[in-house]
Amino acid sequence: MKSISVKLGTQSYPIFIHTTGLSNIGSLVSERKLGNRAAVISDETVSKLYSDRVIKSLEKAGINSFLHIVPNGENSKSLNILSEIYTDIIKRGLKRDDMIIALGGGVVGDIAGFAAATYLRGVNFVQIPTTLLAQVDSSVGGKVGINHPLGKNLVGSFYQPKFVLIDPEVLYTLPRREILAGMGEVIKYALIREKKFFKFLEKNLNTILQLANNKVICKTIKTCCKIKAQVVEKDEKESGLRRILNFGHTLGHALEAATNFNTFKHGEAVIHGMKWASWVSWEKGYLSEEKFNAINALLNRLDIPPIPKGLNSADLITKIKVDKKQSRKGLNLVLLNDIGKFRIETAGNLSPIIEKWLL
Amino acid sequence: MKSISVKLGTQSYPIFIHTTGLSNIGSLVSERKLGNRAAVISDETVSKLYSDRVIKSLEKAGINSFLHIVPNGENSKSLNILSEIYTDIIKRGLKRDDMIIALGGGVVGDIAGFAAATYLRGVNFVQIPTTLLAQVDSSVGGKVGINHPLGKNLVGSFYQPKFVLIDPEVLYTLPRREILAGMGEVIKYALIREKKFFKFLEKNLNTILQLANNKVICKTIKTCCKIKAQVVEKDEKESGLRRILNFGHTLGHALEAATNFNTFKHGEAVIHGMKWASWVSWEKGYLSEEKFNAINALLNRLDIPPIPKGLNSADLITKIKVDKKQSRKGLNLVLLNDIGKFRIETAGNLSPIIEKWLL
Repeated sequence: MKSISVKLGTQSYPIFIHTTGLSNIGSLVSERKLGNRAAVISDETVSKLYSDRVIKSLEKAGINSFLHIVPNGENSKSLNILSEIYTDIIKRGLKRDDMIIALGGGVVGDIAGFAAATYLRGVNFVQIPTTLLAQVDSSVGGKVGINHPLGKNLVGSFYQPKFVLIDPEVLYTLPRREILAGMGEVIKYALIREKKFFKFLEKNLNTILQLANNKVICKTIKTCCKIKAQVVEKDEKESGLRRILNFGHTLGHALEAATNFNTFKHGEAVIHGMKWASWVSWEKGYLSEEKFNAINALLNRLDIPPIPKGLNSADLITKIKVDKKQSRKGLNLVLLNDIGKFRIETAGNLSPIIEKWLL
Repeated sequence: MKSISVKLGTQSYPIFIHTTGLSNIGSLVSERKLGNRAAVISDETVSKLYSDRVIKSLEKAGINSFLHIVPNGENSKSLNILSEIYTDIIKRGLKRDDMIIALGGGVVGDIAGFAAATYLRGVNFVQIPTTLLAQVDSSVGGKVGINHPLGKNLVGSFYQPKFVLIDPEVLYTLPRREILAGMGEVIKYALIREKKFFKFLEKNLNTILQLANNKVICKTIKTCCKIKAQVVEKDEKESGLRRILNFGHTLGHALEAATNFNTFKHGEAVIHGMKWASWVSWEKGYLSEEKFNAINALLNRLDIPPIPKGLNSADLITKIKVDKKQSRKGLNLVLLNDIGKFRIETAGNLSPIIEKWLL
C-alpha cells in the first residue's frame, strides 16, 4: 500500500491513504508486529459506524480486540475520561507489548494517544482519523493530550504513532459542518507554505465540500499530510519552524475558550483566527490588499458560525495569556508576507488589533 | 562541581553529588539557562526542612520561585494530586520555558517529574532527591509516573531531568527506617552487578546505617548512580538490560500492593523481594549455598517489618499478574548466578515457589 513517510529518526512512521482502507487495519497491524491485543478507542458516533469493520479486520488477523467508547465531543479530553480509559485497559489486562488504536476525530486521537503515551510508560499507538480535520492535522506530528478547565491542550506529550491509516471514504458519513471545519486547516497549509495548493483549493473548494471527486479529496489530504510532515520533520518538539502551524490558532484557541468550547468547532475557530491573522498581516503592510482579498474570499466561502456579538477583546486577551504558546519571551504571532509565505514576530500588546478587528 | 554523567544522547545529564549542595541549586540552574521561573514541588516534611534553602538560592540567582506542597506518602502519586499540581502551575503562569524542581524522595520525584513531562507537553525538570532511596535509584533513569488504584506505576513516562543534585547531608534528618529501606536498593546494585561493591557493603554497612562517615556515604551513592547509569545508558526504555534493575521488584511490588501500600516502604518490600529471588536462585541451583547465605546474612542485618502472617501466595500472584512488567511473552524473573551476576528467565507458574517460601 502506498504511503507518505514522516521521517523522525527512530520514531518515523508511514501514513497510508487508501479508500476502503479500514478493512486493511488487521493486516497492517500484524505485518508490523504491534502486539496481539488491541484496545480500540472511539466515540459514540464513530464506533456505531466503523468499529465493527475495524474489529472484524483485527480479529481476522488474529488480534484480540476490545472497544472502549468515550462520549462525543471536546469534553472527553479530560482527566476523568482518561482515568476511565486507564481503569478499563488495566482491568482488561492490556500489556506493554499490546496496542491502542484511535478510531475517530481529533478528540479521540488526542486522548487515546495520551493514554498510549502514558499507560505503562508507553504502548504501541495506531491512528485511524475519521474526520477531515484529524486526517490533515492531528494524525501528523505526535501531539497528544487533554484539556484543563483553565485552557486547551495544557496537558500532553509528543508521542508518535506506529502508523496512520486514512480512509477518505469515511468522510461520506461526516456532517457538512465537520468538512467545513476541516477545510480551515487545509487552507492553512496552503497559506503558510504552498501558493500552488492555494490555487488548487480556489478551483476545487466546492468539489471538496461536496465530496464529489475521490481523486481530488485524496490529493487534498495527501498534500496537507506532506506539508505538515515536512514541517514536523524539521522541528519535532515545536521550538522553531513548527510554530508556523499555529497560524490562525492564537485567536482561534482564545475564541474557543472564551465561548466555553460550545460555540465553535476547533477548525471553525481557526478559520476566524486565520481571517484575523491575515487582516493583521495586511494592516501591518506585510500582505498586499489583493492577496488579502483573495484569502478572505476563499475563507468566506466556508459558511461558519459568526463571532458572538457580546464577545469583547478583553475576554480574548485573557484566554490568549494562558495559552501555552506564550513563552517568557512573549507571544509568537504567525503572520503572512504572501500566500504561501509565513513570518513570525513577537507580539506586543494585542488589545488594539483585536479591538479594531472585532468592530 | 564534579559530576557523574548519564549519557543518553540529546537527553544526557549530569548528577552532582556534593555536601551542602542545596545552596548551589540557584547557580546550577542559571548556568544551564533552564528558565527564570521555578515551581518547587516538595512534600510536607521535606519542605519544612529544606525548601527555604532551595528557594533562597534560586531567588539569589534571579529565579522567581514558588513552592507547591503535596501530602507525605505514596498516596500522593495519584491523578488527583497531579491535577492539583496542574491547576496550581497554570494559575501561577508557569510557561513552556520555565522549570519544575522536585525536592523530596521518590514519590515527589515521580509525580513532579510526570507533571514536568506532561505540562505543556514537557517543561524543564530538575531533581533534588532527599532520601537515600531516591538518591541511588529514582534520580537515574527518567522513570516518572503515578499509581492507579489497581496497581503501582501503571501511568507514566520516560522523562530525563536536566540535572540531578544530590546532597548527602540531607540524609542526617532522615528517619532510620528510610535509610534501611534505601539500603535495599543499594545492595541490589551490588547483587546484580558488582561483587566488589558487595564486599564494601559487608564491611561498611553499619557505618552507612549510622551515617558515621561522609566519605563512605558519598562513595556508596556514587557507586549506585554509576551502576544504574551504565544500565540505563544501554537500555533507556527497558526493553533489555534495564530489566535487571527489577531484581527483587516482582515480589516487592506485589507485597506492597497486597498490603495496600501501608505496611512496607518500597525499599523494604524490595528487600523481601530480593530475599525471595535469591532463595529461588539457590533453590533452582543457580546460586551456591555459600553465596546465598552471604546475601541473606547481609540482608538480615537490615531490621525491617516481617511479611504479615495472614498473607497468602494467591494474593501475591494476583498482584504480580497486574504488574506492568508482565508482557505477553510472560513474566521476566531476574535471578542470580553469583553475587554480581544476574540471569533473566521467563517465569512459569510462580505459585509453588511463592508458597514454599512463605512457609
